[in-house]
Amino acid sequence: MTVAEVGENVTVEPGATVGYEYDDDVGPAVLLGDATVRHGTIVYADTELGYGLQTGHNALIRERCIVGDDVLVGTNAVLDGLLTVGSNVSIQTGVYVPPETAIGDDVFLGPQVTMTNDPYPLRRDVPLQGPTVEDGASVGANATLLPDVTVGENAFVAAGAVVTEDVPPDTLAVGVPATHRPLPEELAARNVVA
Amino acid sequence: MTVAEVGENVTVEPGATVGYEYDDDVGPAVLLGDATVRHGTIVYADTELGYGLQTGHNALIRERCIVGDDVLVGTNAVLDGLLTVGSNVSIQTGVYVPPETAIGDDVFLGPQVTMTNDPYPLRRDVPLQGPTVEDGASVGANATLLPDVTVGENAFVAAGAVVTEDVPPDTLAVGVPATHRPLPEELAARNVVA
Amino acid sequence: MTVAEVGENVTVEPGATVGYEYDDDVGPAVLLGDATVRHGTIVYADTELGYGLQTGHNALIRERCIVGDDVLVGTNAVLDGLLTVGSNVSIQTGVYVPPETAIGDDVFLGPQVTMTNDPYPLRRDVPLQGPTVEDGASVGANATLLPDVTVGENAFVAAGAVVTEDVPPDTLAVGVPATHRPLPEELAARNVVA
Repeated sequence: MTVAEVGENVTVEPGATVGYEYDDDVGPAVLLGDATVRHGTIVYADTELGYGLQTGHNALIRERCIVGDDVLVGTNAVLDGLLTVGSNVSIQTGVYVPPETAIGDDVFLGPQVTMTNDPYPLRRDVPLQGPTVEDGASVGANATLLPDVTVGENAFVAAGAVVTEDVPPDTLAVGVPATHRPLPEELAARNVVA
Repeated sequence: MTVAEVGENVTVEPGATVGYEYDDDVGPAVLLGDATVRHGTIVYADTELGYGLQTGHNALIRERCIVGDDVLVGTNAVLDGLLTVGSNVSIQTGVYVPPETAIGDDVFLGPQVTMTNDPYPLRRDVPLQGPTVEDGASVGANATLLPDVTVGENAFVAAGAVVTEDVPPDTLAVGVPATHRPLPEELAARNVVA
Repeated sequence: MTVAEVGENVTVEPGATVGYEYDDDVGPAVLLGDATVRHGTIVYADTELGYGLQTGHNALIRERCIVGDDVLVGTNAVLDGLLTVGSNVSIQTGVYVPPETAIGDDVFLGPQVTMTNDPYPLRRDVPLQGPTVEDGASVGANATLLPDVTVGENAFVAAGAVVTEDVPPDTLAVGVPATHRPLPEELAARNVVA
C-alpha cells in the first residue's frame, strides 16, 4: 500500500515504490515535481522531496526525510529517515546517511560514503546524532563520518578518510583519523550547481 | 519458485522473496516466527532463521545461513551463505558477511562493515575462512575485517578500522592497520538486548 | 520496456531486467550466452556482455559497459556505464566501478571496493577518468582507488587501502595512503581462471 502526492512531470518507473506505508496512519510522500524515481527504488510515506529529484536504482528514502530541490540520490543510497538534505546535492552510489543528520546545499557525497549517529552502539543510551555537512562541502568516496561531527562550509574530505573531529570551513581533511590542512587552490569551492 | 516454512506472525511483504530455490532439491527457508521481511529482500532456501527476525529492504540471506533470535538484517546487507549468527544481533545497512563466518550473540555490526574470507584471491587455493566475532563485540561503521581474525568478547572495533590481527576481549581496535588499546570506560560492555 | 539479444543458455530470472531502455532509440543489451542474471539485477540497453556472465542479486550494469567472458558481477555491484571489463574477472558484492574505468583480464575486485573518476567534484570541470586495473591484479575488500590511478599487472592492493598513486606491476599496496612493497612470495600471481 502506498500514499503519495506528486506534482507535474513526476515519473515513477515500474518496479519503483513511492509512498511506502511503513505504519498505520501515515502522511503521504510528497514529490513537488520534475522528478524521476527509477526501478527498484523505495520512497517511504511521510517524506517531502523537492523539485528535480532524480534517483538511481534500489535507493531507499525512509520516513521523515526532508529533501530540497535538484537532488540526486544514487543507486543503493540509503537516506535512513528523520534527516534533512538541502538543494543541489549529489548523493552518489551506496551512500549511507543515518537519522538525525543534516546535509546543506551544494553538497557532494561520493560513492559509498558512510555516516554514523551512535557513538556507543549497544553500550550506552545516548541521543543519536548524525553529522552536519555544511553548504558547499564535499565528502570523498568511501569516507566515514563519526557521529555528531561537523564538516564546515566548502570543506573537502578526502576519499577514504575517517573524520573523528569537526572539520573547519575551507579545510581539507585527509587520512585515518583525518588530519586537517588548508584547502589547496585546486580544491577551492566555486559557485556551481550540481 | 520458493520453498518456506514459516511460523506465526511472519510478514513477508509484497516484493520480498522467502525460500528462493537456488538449486534443485533444496530444503525450505525456515522462519520460526514473529518476523518481518521487507520489500526487496531475498531469503534463500536452506536457511534457519530464529524468532523476531527483522529485515530492511533489498537485503540478501543466502543458503545455509543459521541465524538466532531477535536479529536485524539491515537494508542492502548481505549474509553470503554458509555462516552462523547468534541472537540479539544488529546488522546495519550494507554490511557484507562472507561464507565461513561466525557471529556471536549481542553483536553490533555498523553500517557498511566488510568482512573477508580469502587471503589470496585468485592466487592460491586455501580453505576459505571468515572472521569470528565473539559475544558482545561491536564493529564500527565501514570497518574491514581480514580473513580468519577473531574479534574477542566485548571488544570494540572503531569505525573505519582495518583489522588484520586478532582483537583480544575487552579491547579497542583503531586505525589502519588496527592497533589495540584497553577499552575506555565509556565503551565498556553492558548487559543489553538489541 | 526492454530490448535485448540473448544467445543460448541465458537465464534471466523473474524479477531481473535485461535491456532496460534508459532513453529513446537505444541499442540492445547483448548477452552472448551461458549466462545467469539473478532476481533483482538490472542490465541496461546498449551493453555487450560475453559468454558465461553470472550475476548476483540487485546488481546494476549501465549503458555502454563492454564486458568479456566468464565474469561474475556480485550482489549490489554497480558497473556505472561507459567502462570496459576483461575476461575471467570476479567483481564481488557491493563493488562500485564508475564511468571511464578499464578493468583487464583475470582481475579480482573484493567486496565493497570503491573506485572514483572525479578529482574535483563540483569544484572544477575536468574530464572524468576512472582507474585502470591491469591484467592479473587483485584489489582487496573495501579498498578505494582514486581517479586515474593505474594498478599494474599482477599487483595486489590490500584490504582497506586507499590508492592515491599508480601501483607498479607485481607490487603490494597497503595502507592509507597506500605505500608500496615488493609482492610477497605467497601473493605471487598464478595462471588461474576465475
